[in-house]
Amino acid sequence: MSAIDTLTTELARLPGIGRKTALRLTYHLLKQPAEHVSRLADALLTLERVRPCSQCFNLTEEDICSICTDVRRDSATICTVEDAADIGAIERAGEFRGVYHVLGGRLSPLDGIGPDDLTIPQLERRVAGGAVREVILATNPSIEGEATALYVQRKLSAFQLTVTRIARGLPVGGDLEYADGVTIAQALSARRSM
Amino acid sequence: MSAIDTLTTELARLPGIGRKTALRLTYHLLKQPAEHVSRLADALLTLERVRPCSQCFNLTEEDICSICTDVRRDSATICTVEDAADIGAIERAGEFRGVYHVLGGRLSPLDGIGPDDLTIPQLERRVAGGAVREVILATNPSIEGEATALYVQRKLSAFQLTVTRIARGLPVGGDLEYADGVTIAQALSARRSM
Repeated sequence: MSAIDTLTTELARLPGIGRKTALRLTYHLLKQPAEHVSRLADALLTLERVRPCSQCFNLTEEDICSICTDVRRDSATICTVEDAADIGAIERAGEFRGVYHVLGGRLSPLDGIGPDDLTIPQLERRVAGGAVREVILATNPSIEGEATALYVQRKLSAFQLTVTRIARGLPVGGDLEYADGVTIAQALSARRSM
Repeated sequence: MSAIDTLTTELARLPGIGRKTALRLTYHLLKQPAEHVSRLADALLTLERVRPCSQCFNLTEEDICSICTDVRRDSATICTVEDAADIGAIERAGEFRGVYHVLGGRLSPLDGIGPDDLTIPQLERRVAGGAVREVILATNPSIEGEATALYVQRKLSAFQLTVTRIARGLPVGGDLEYADGVTIAQALSARRSM
C-alpha cells in the first residue's frame, strides 16, 4: 500500500472522518512542510505518556495530576465526572475550585458496565478519610448518567458529607463534554442537595 | 504544554477540524491501543517519501509513478489535471486508460500564479517528442480552471495533436476531486475538441 493510501486508511479510522475527508487531509498534509507533519506524528507518540492520576483518575503525565497537587484548590469538594474529557469542559467554565474524581464511564447494564468497572470503590476510599465535605455528581444528564449519580449517592450516604447533583441546566440527553462554559457554570452554581 | 494539549493543537491545524473536534479526536486516540496510535504516527512519517513523478508530477514514492510505468496504459493520451488528487478521482471512475500530467495548480493572477509556476513547459516538452496524439484538459470547471485550459490549449496548438476539454458534466464552480465516478466518466467520454 502506498504512503498516501496508508495514511488515508489510518485517518479514516478516526471518528467522524470518512474516506473522502481522510484523503483531503492526506493531500493537505502532503503540501505542508515536513516539520509540521512530524510535529503531528510526535504529538501522537507522546500520548503514550498519558495515564490516569493515581488519586482522581484524571489523565496526566505524572503520578498525581496538576489539579490534585494544586494547593490553592479545595480538596474537600470533589466533583465526580464520567470521563477525563469532562474535566476540561468544567475547567474552561472557570467556576469550580475543588478537585475531581473520574468514574471512567457510567453504569450501563446493557453494555455490561457495572459498579466494579467504574472507580466508585476508589471514590468511597477517598471520602472515607473524613476530610471531604461535599461530593458533586456531575455525570451527564442522560438516563445512564442519572442512574450512575443515584447509585453513587446511595453508596456515599453512609458517610458524613453532602452529596449534590449538578443542576439540570444542560439539555437532557446532551453531553457535558460539548456544553458551553456559561451553561456549565450555571449548572454548577445551581447544584442542589440530593 | 501537556501531551493532550499538544496533540489537540496539532490536530486543530488541519483544515475543517476545529478545537472541539481536535479535542474529541485526542480523547478518542487516548482510548485506542498504543499500536493504533503509533501506526497513524508512522503513516504520517512515511509521507516524507512521497514526491512528484519526474515525468507526470503525480505523487509517488518512486522516481516514475506506477501509472507512467504501466505498459498497458496508452502513453499517447495525456490527461492534464490541476492536482495529483484529481488523478485519484479519475482513476476511481475507471474509464481512462491513458496517462496523466499534473499542472500543480491553475493560473491565478490574483494569487500571483502564472504559467511558470505550473508544469506547462514540462508538458510542452513531453508532447514535443511527437508520440502524443491527444491531450485532454481536465482542469476544474471553474473560471480559473477554464482559463488554464485555454492557456494550455494555445500553447499546444503549435504541435500536431488533438487537444480536448473534459465535458461540462461537472457542476460549474465544482471541484473535480470530490465529483462522483459516474459524472467523471460521462465528462470524459463526452469530451470535445477545442
